[in-house]
Amino acid sequence: MNIPEKYPSKLLENAVQAIGSLPGVGKRSALRLALHLLRQPVENVHHFADSIVRLRDEAKYCKECRMISDDDICPICSDRTRDRRTICVVENVRDVMSIENTGQYHGLYHVLGGIISPIAGVGPSDITVAALVERVKSMVTSGETAPEDIEIILALSGDVEGETTSFYIYRLISGFGIRVSSLARGLGFGDDLEYADELTLGRSIVNRQQFKP
Amino acid sequence: MNIPEKYPSKLLENAVQAIGSLPGVGKRSALRLALHLLRQPVENVHHFADSIVRLRDEAKYCKECRMISDDDICPICSDRTRDRRTICVVENVRDVMSIENTGQYHGLYHVLGGIISPIAGVGPSDITVAALVERVKSMVTSGETAPEDIEIILALSGDVEGETTSFYIYRLISGFGIRVSSLARGLGFGDDLEYADELTLGRSIVNRQQFKP
Repeated sequence: MNIPEKYPSKLLENAVQAIGSLPGVGKRSALRLALHLLRQPVENVHHFADSIVRLRDEAKYCKECRMISDDDICPICSDRTRDRRTICVVENVRDVMSIENTGQYHGLYHVLGGIISPIAGVGPSDITVAALVERVKSMVTSGETAPEDIEIILALSGDVEGETTSFYIYRLISGFGIRVSSLARGLGFGDDLEYADELTLGRSIVNRQQFKP
Repeated sequence: MNIPEKYPSKLLENAVQAIGSLPGVGKRSALRLALHLLRQPVENVHHFADSIVRLRDEAKYCKECRMISDDDICPICSDRTRDRRTICVVENVRDVMSIENTGQYHGLYHVLGGIISPIAGVGPSDITVAALVERVKSMVTSGETAPEDIEIILALSGDVEGETTSFYIYRLISGFGIRVSSLARGLGFGDDLEYADELTLGRSIVNRQQFKP
């Protein structure tokens, strides 16, 4: 079937174009969603639009970790029970939420807001690397914590962009004498050896750990 | 990975819930789309929300065919070059657009706005069947066209709901002495016999047509 092109209504066409501009939403899905919204009660549609506009207009970024936040300092950074000597560097807020959901991490975060990618035209100045370096610097110079007790975890994805960004950050902060780590790579839980790619399996062997029964 | 549940921002959570309420959009996609919108220029996001609200607030339905329209009468119904003796009955405006895109149909439409489905709780009074019957009635009683020159094409989907709705409408309008037809069912162009389902193939044989080389 062809993509519909003739719209019986300009209002419908505008809405379909707006919805279709979202990533991963094709013209056909956009039309389906527009017609769905058309069938909803007026107040629901107003609420839908309003919640999106309010997000864009009112959301702030935490002054410490640059995560999206309703306040100047996010709930994680203002939580005094968390380990303030450890900063986990992630690409975006989704990664923060994923790591938080594991319940395994109790330190702070630093949200880069992107990843260095020459292809996508994203350079170091487009992400919050400078703010991270400043943050590390002030942690070290404050003298509250010995540099060797400060740990920066580079929790970026394992692709070229992620590795490049990790390396770039490592070079900038390694001079402070702090610990810099990255996420363990290896087979996932429940993964079948047979279906693992060679790189992952190779790293799993090199980084093998003591068996703890 | 688990579905993220802890949001660092109430604004983000509200937007994700709103976007996730759309059919076929899961929580993860909703979060991705919300973060995408957050990165867009403010005016784009306002335009996005505005076009949806305007669609819901301002869209009308054509008084003739019940299709979504910017005016009281839609462009198709007000097009005097179209064949006004033929009405193609469809479920929704997407079907109108699909048929229009074929360029093979030059009559009018009637948009039911749904399909009779006892499971989904949609009865005849929830769709525009009564308006269709009135329309046929006034065409017949006006005397402009002989009943046998009026054709109603039931262009509904071939599933149980579509067949039920077609049959229901047929019973209501067949008494007017007009022609009632339905879409040809058969193998699609380029379809392989081997992969056609038995019902479709069976109908293709029963409804075979004279070979026109």
